[in-house]
Amino acid sequence: MPSVTANPSQALAQRIVDTVRVLSIESVQRANSGHPGLPMGCADFATELWSRWLNVDPAWPEWPGRDRFVLSAGHGSMLLYSMLHLSGFELSRAEIDRFRQWESRTPGHPEHGWTPGVETTTGPLGQGLANAVGLAAAERHVAARFPGLPDGPAGHRTWVLAGDGDLMEGVASEAASLAGHWKLSRLGVFYDSNRITIDGSTDLAFSEDVGARFEAYGWHVVGPIDGHDRDALHAAIAACVEETSRPSLIVGRTHIAHGSPNFEDSNKAHGAPLGEAEVRLIKERLGFDPEKPVEVPAEVREFFAEWRATRREASDAWRRREESWKKTQPAEHAAWHRALAGEIDGDPLAAAKVPAAGEKIATRSAGGSVLQVAAAAVPELLPGSADLFESNKTAIAGAKPFSDRDPAGRNVFYGVREHAMGAIANGLALHGGVRPVTSTFLVFADYMRPPIRLAALMELPVVFVFTHDSVWVGEDGPTHQPIEQLDSLRIIPGVHVVRPADARETIAAWRHALLRRHPTVLVLTRQNLPVLERAAGTPEVGLAGVVHEPAGDPRLAIVASGSEVALGFEAAAVLAKEGIPARVISVPCLEQLREAPAADVDRLLLPDVPRLVVEAATGYTWGEWVRPGDGFHGIRRFGASAPGAVVAEKLGLSAEAVTAAARKLLG
Amino acid sequence: MPSVTANPSQALAQRIVDTVRVLSIESVQRANSGHPGLPMGCADFATELWSRWLNVDPAWPEWPGRDRFVLSAGHGSMLLYSMLHLSGFELSRAEIDRFRQWESRTPGHPEHGWTPGVETTTGPLGQGLANAVGLAAAERHVAARFPGLPDGPAGHRTWVLAGDGDLMEGVASEAASLAGHWKLSRLGVFYDSNRITIDGSTDLAFSEDVGARFEAYGWHVVGPIDGHDRDALHAAIAACVEETSRPSLIVGRTHIAHGSPNFEDSNKAHGAPLGEAEVRLIKERLGFDPEKPVEVPAEVREFFAEWRATRREASDAWRRREESWKKTQPAEHAAWHRALAGEIDGDPLAAAKVPAAGEKIATRSAGGSVLQVAAAAVPELLPGSADLFESNKTAIAGAKPFSDRDPAGRNVFYGVREHAMGAIANGLALHGGVRPVTSTFLVFADYMRPPIRLAALMELPVVFVFTHDSVWVGEDGPTHQPIEQLDSLRIIPGVHVVRPADARETIAAWRHALLRRHPTVLVLTRQNLPVLERAAGTPEVGLAGVVHEPAGDPRLAIVASGSEVALGFEAAAVLAKEGIPARVISVPCLEQLREAPAADVDRLLLPDVPRLVVEAATGYTWGEWVRPGDGFHGIRRFGASAPGAVVAEKLGLSAEAVTAAARKLLG
Repeated sequence: MPSVTANPSQALAQRIVDTVRVLSIESVQRANSGHPGLPMGCADFATELWSRWLNVDPAWPEWPGRDRFVLSAGHGSMLLYSMLHLSGFELSRAEIDRFRQWESRTPGHPEHGWTPGVETTTGPLGQGLANAVGLAAAERHVAARFPGLPDGPAGHRTWVLAGDGDLMEGVASEAASLAGHWKLSRLGVFYDSNRITIDGSTDLAFSEDVGARFEAYGWHVVGPIDGHDRDALHAAIAACVEETSRPSLIVGRTHIAHGSPNFEDSNKAHGAPLGEAEVRLIKERLGFDPEKPVEVPAEVREFFAEWRATRREASDAWRRREESWKKTQPAEHAAWHRALAGEIDGDPLAAAKVPAAGEKIATRSAGGSVLQVAAAAVPELLPGSADLFESNKTAIAGAKPFSDRDPAGRNVFYGVREHAMGAIANGLALHGGVRPVTSTFLVFADYMRPPIRLAALMELPVVFVFTHDSVWVGEDGPTHQPIEQLDSLRIIPGVHVVRPADARETIAAWRHALLRRHPTVLVLTRQNLPVLERAAGTPEVGLAGVVHEPAGDPRLAIVASGSEVALGFEAAAVLAKEGIPARVISVPCLEQLREAPAADVDRLLLPDVPRLVVEAATGYTWGEWVRPGDGFHGIRRFGASAPGAVVAEKLGLSAEAVTAAARKLLG
Repeated sequence: MPSVTANPSQALAQRIVDTVRVLSIESVQRANSGHPGLPMGCADFATELWSRWLNVDPAWPEWPGRDRFVLSAGHGSMLLYSMLHLSGFELSRAEIDRFRQWESRTPGHPEHGWTPGVETTTGPLGQGLANAVGLAAAERHVAARFPGLPDGPAGHRTWVLAGDGDLMEGVASEAASLAGHWKLSRLGVFYDSNRITIDGSTDLAFSEDVGARFEAYGWHVVGPIDGHDRDALHAAIAACVEETSRPSLIVGRTHIAHGSPNFEDSNKAHGAPLGEAEVRLIKERLGFDPEKPVEVPAEVREFFAEWRATRREASDAWRRREESWKKTQPAEHAAWHRALAGEIDGDPLAAAKVPAAGEKIATRSAGGSVLQVAAAAVPELLPGSADLFESNKTAIAGAKPFSDRDPAGRNVFYGVREHAMGAIANGLALHGGVRPVTSTFLVFADYMRPPIRLAALMELPVVFVFTHDSVWVGEDGPTHQPIEQLDSLRIIPGVHVVRPADARETIAAWRHALLRRHPTVLVLTRQNLPVLERAAGTPEVGLAGVVHEPAGDPRLAIVASGSEVALGFEAAAVLAKEGIPARVISVPCLEQLREAPAADVDRLLLPDVPRLVVEAATGYTWGEWVRPGDGFHGIRRFGASAPGAVVAEKLGLSAEAVTAAARKLLG
């Protein structure tokens, strides 16, 4: 049950609903762009949830104990902006009036980190619901880790508004299945079942029984109810709150553009303004001056002032409980506070053992060892895998699986659900207090692109681990051998993709990922690699450095990432015997090179000698460092099934082939 | 009901099952790599299906009237190879013995086009099931279009073997929902419910009621049955065949590695050989000589010889019906035959109207007009959209939606299910007789990567249309503005990504896509673009050519794709006035440049003058054409919400900014 309420009368609630409607359609009209249908159709639900249940404090939008509200159907952004504005978040009328304009706080789809009160960036359908599963999972986990948490045993809740489109997307199915498995009872989803999508009636493509499907996932399903009947909405939300062992889905039958004389129940109301005339008509019908910009009625303003006071009381009470906790359990409180802030003191990997040069270790195995050290130093680290823990080596040894029985468990078994894994990890990071890590094979990064992109857009500190990073995967064949995936991740703005050459660089790579506040991708091998040493006195740029410096002045620079650095190292030895001195450079992270001063990069890469870039992948992102006369030695075709060493040999990924390419380059 | 059977006795069936088991585990052991658990656990189902139901003819693997069998759980490839080998497909024992070796016909995961009898390439989970939905949808569509088809009213069937992993993947959920919506009653899925995944028991991550979920999708669900009880399997398959209004799911409770004394029901049997000792033990237990390579028992060989004769009779009868059809309805037959072969006579777009230079048309609109011409010329063209037909402009005017009521309908409403759309389109192409086209916004290509990659690997002639191709999307903001997606598609081996500069190039782009036998991506604008003309007497390379040739010798080459060509064109006019003659080159398809002779590319791109590459995207794939001293003018950050022209202006995508960049380049 919510700790505080400020129940509006039915008449007042209706006034709020109508204000939301006219504010939304007027803003869409002003922008001449946007989605009027959803705000009109869901104003009843939003008003009921916001006014009587949602425990948030506009004066403290980052309140850790707040309920989270996720507008998974992000195109209905004006609904959220209207609620944020009316309820007193820092979102002025001037910003509402600049809906969808350059640098306004009211962009086309809600953007986390830009507009106070927006819990996650939504728009690409299905992502918000999956993020919400992560938010609710984090709540359970953090509450279990910190019994003294001021939230109390009832925790805080995660609410979602999802549309037909969200529920058609596979990522939502995957996440819903996990939410049922984890019995996330403090997660409640309102399904805006208006039976309309952009192309027309859902009869065209969506005739399944969504409620029955969610019951099959182990959810508590309420309804179908009339989504415009606020008593029914109240009872449905109350049923969600009373349910203590399953996540809840309210199936709300609504009418898109409800209240529009000419567009209700029409797909024309989905993604385009209703037109000036219709907006005037609706304003008039709902008791607003059709000739003037919408004015928020005084009674609505007054209601929300009172509402804010109740929320403030709630957050004040929470703060008092926090202070008392801090006094009685200062260490616990400090640990929680640090985890919430995402702060890491000192070097989290100080205890990592640096293996001796020449040892042969797969970087996934090295990563597994590093992860144990990281897990001890960073107790909020929460690694997960899409059913490949043993292959990815990303489980914390001795830790339990995260589950309903063990919500403090630290290994997250996502099942074979890569897409939901990424989106849930984003939700975990958004909640705070946990530091999510995902893992699967590199080739399956393709299943996870939308959440990786959103992590980059939201600047979330998620670590995405990908192992089995090249054709050395071997026998599993081309469906399992990444070729273009390295490039595909490097091109996402804001992501650092780190592909260490050996066990030593794996430690540095993990350190970089842990200390970064943005998403980082770690790319690790299946096969063993020799541990290399940095040549004394040679330049470094970020994680990049020289692993072999020849005796004489270099006549060639061999530049590589990951497992190909060792090939370059071997090739350099052969070339040395032939009187060709070559510097071998490991570049684990291209983005760092791009961000560094050009002079530093020049010192490392040697601008005056020919350059051979070696990477067992498409390597298009190396383009700017492959000048005319330089060479790129990689793979621009699909792989094949055979033992890894055979595939590599056949595709030219051997020290011999690299040596030959070097010779050819030098003519 | 199958047209012919050759029912083995129970004892003989058991012998087949055991032969499959030992052949599979021996091959995995020999390769020292692979998945023994699934073949052992599903040998009962495969034997029942193959011996008594599956209507295929090993002597004619491409028989259009055959049943299709899809091993969605592709890691169990030895099960499929065993069945193909035993039943007499062109897969010799020598190939079985080279399981997972370089260029053997028995790669780690089944590869379509490489091994006769393999209907689709599987391995990435969920894809096979979604392909199968496409196969079954194509069967319905083609049968409706050609009532004279020799298949007869019962059509042919699509059978799938799917595991827990398949059913966890969102793409399978999306596809299953559509299969239920379309009432694809000739689709039957055996769910190998062994409750084990790589990481252990499915209790760790998968506790939903799969049968109930499929019932919610509108499927006919049989079981759970004992997946090792062949009478139960027989009855279950019979129930699928008798069902005429819904797709069927058989929930088969099986034991992974069934028959292995030490590995049955263990996740250790999933992805690693059982060990020499265990293989010997199992061989002995199942009545095979433990010390020798498995010999196929004589009675098994004899049974399949008899079985082949019955299948041959069936395909012969089908061929006779085809001949009679050819005589009575030669035009219909010829149309079907041509569609099946994927042949297009002459120029399919001869009737396309070339718009006048200077007209302003969005390339999505131009594409929509072209598609109408293509649809008339290529009656097997089957466009679909993930709920964006109106935005993508990809629907055939006047055509009905593909549906249970109208299976000859030609517009496929996929709902908001981009991932399944791609995978189903692959299945449509694999079936033959249809030419699938998908469409959505370019930014959502991220949801579709796995099937696009598989289309490339299988060399399927799918056309993937993506509209709203840059920040000119505008108000919808960064979640909807593609930045890195162009690069992300260009890096997939074998895909041609075509981004036409105007309506004229859109016609050429569509022609290229239609005449190609590999996957082609078409990238189109939301916003209007002026129609440009090729400069007379200038060189062309594939679809690339010169849209502006200056009066004097060019001092600069402006190279662009899509909407940025017009910016270059405008910039060139300004530069001309300043005395800087610039050639402006449109390069719609980078892959063609890469495939062309270097001299041709040089003639087009002018190697001796500085080059400015302009693209409203990350543009890493241009790398090899951006030499030191050249410039790249693009976007390597996320976009923002505002009217499209404002966003473009703010991010430097204006003629002025391009002109300034050109000036700067020339110093």
